[in-house]
Amino acid sequence: MYFNKKSLKKLSLKKLSECIVCGRLPVLELLKAGKRTVNKLIVSKTATGSTISEIICLAKQKGITIYRVPLKKIKKISDFSQGIAADVSPIEYIGLFDLIKKSKKSINPFIVLLDSVKDPHNLGAIIRNCVFFGVDGIIIPKRRAVNVNMTVSKVSAGAVDHISISRVSNINLSIDLLIENGFLIVGTTEKGELLLEKTNLTFPLAIIMGNEGFGLHNLTKKKCDFLISIPQYTNNTINQVSSLNVSSASAIIVYEVTKKRKI
Amino acid sequence: MYFNKKSLKKLSLKKLSECIVCGRLPVLELLKAGKRTVNKLIVSKTATGSTISEIICLAKQKGITIYRVPLKKIKKISDFSQGIAADVSPIEYIGLFDLIKKSKKSINPFIVLLDSVKDPHNLGAIIRNCVFFGVDGIIIPKRRAVNVNMTVSKVSAGAVDHISISRVSNINLSIDLLIENGFLIVGTTEKGELLLEKTNLTFPLAIIMGNEGFGLHNLTKKKCDFLISIPQYTNNTINQVSSLNVSSASAIIVYEVTKKRKI
Repeated sequence: MYFNKKSLKKLSLKKLSECIVCGRLPVLELLKAGKRTVNKLIVSKTATGSTISEIICLAKQKGITIYRVPLKKIKKISDFSQGIAADVSPIEYIGLFDLIKKSKKSINPFIVLLDSVKDPHNLGAIIRNCVFFGVDGIIIPKRRAVNVNMTVSKVSAGAVDHISISRVSNINLSIDLLIENGFLIVGTTEKGELLLEKTNLTFPLAIIMGNEGFGLHNLTKKKCDFLISIPQYTNNTINQVSSLNVSSASAIIVYEVTKKRKI
Repeated sequence: MYFNKKSLKKLSLKKLSECIVCGRLPVLELLKAGKRTVNKLIVSKTATGSTISEIICLAKQKGITIYRVPLKKIKKISDFSQGIAADVSPIEYIGLFDLIKKSKKSINPFIVLLDSVKDPHNLGAIIRNCVFFGVDGIIIPKRRAVNVNMTVSKVSAGAVDHISISRVSNINLSIDLLIENGFLIVGTTEKGELLLEKTNLTFPLAIIMGNEGFGLHNLTKKKCDFLISIPQYTNNTINQVSSLNVSSASAIIVYEVTKKRKI
């Protein structure tokens, strides 16, 4: 079954930013998670490989309509489609109360709060790190920050469908609510009071990571119980790079926190 | 002094991929490092801020010609220029012998070898992680891998100018040379024999990270003294994300190695 020009135009123009998931691993994870309704699966006629076969097999099981289209048509949807795209329902954000309630069921609740992360590559990578290490949930702001769009979904390798994400109007009120619920609030900066690996982080924990350029907002900083930083362990720092990318920093922090809790 | 159309066209078409560094932090780090010759600095007329002032001040000190152009003209060079671009000499790769010789001057030599990393975002992020933690050098293959281009430079936040990078024709011959020079060769995979934090990594060390899709080549794997993996520390792994992005993995590995050596 092929697209006619009209339907492809509709799809690519109307539902491009929020409701299309592109790429082999993201589409596979989307189908595996089974949380979002997949309306259509669009596969390039030339796409082959074990992941494509697995995706098609899963889609057939779920009764999803599969369209085989020429590669150049799928490229109109996204240049990074890897020959496959899925037209899906938007990601369902979870309410903050529900996120906290759900997290508190863990032995050691662990939430990551992102204060104005703007780059979709960073958000996608952070979500993937959080899912890999079993973080309970992520809080992102509604304004002045990137939301979970097609790029985020792609970069996260489909991890967006495996974690609860809450999108809040006010980060500071959310922090207050976390404090009320017994969470320790820890901010991350270049020059924190404490070094990451020397800190006890085995309480119910909310780690806050800041914007790529300016880091944490001042008001957010003030609300933190304390600030930590990643030690550089090197003397060659004269005139050299003094900070990590926010997604790399998140990887190290989430790794170290979960390590401390399990060892 | 303004560009005329002809000169801008020449610049954007001829020297786009290899010889233009874009973005505020990358250009600042480029000037600070002072390793590469900066032929021209191109600044948007509307660009302001402390970083821009610092860059212009440094450029004037070094006698570099500064062109102030309208923003739309600089956007023709790159969409991600942040209002500033520098036309520079290409990055100077270092020979493998020199890299090893230089590394061996460290108390604990530490080299990162990338076996076919293809995404410039990943290479840029890995280079930034390596510089942050004081890795002695990076080895990348000449073929079937991304080289240090404009995107890499931008994503690394200028870190490319603070580390020795060697570009080799044959990864396996390079590993042989590292072995001859007393390096321990450690590969990273999803399912390694050893867990990262339980391994003694205080020898002269070469860590090998694989391709984003298929990981390490089989031949490369065979040459490793052993394979390590990053423990997931979570039980919620059924149907969930089973691997980290290569740049996040590099952040955790390089952090853990340098931590073990300094504590």
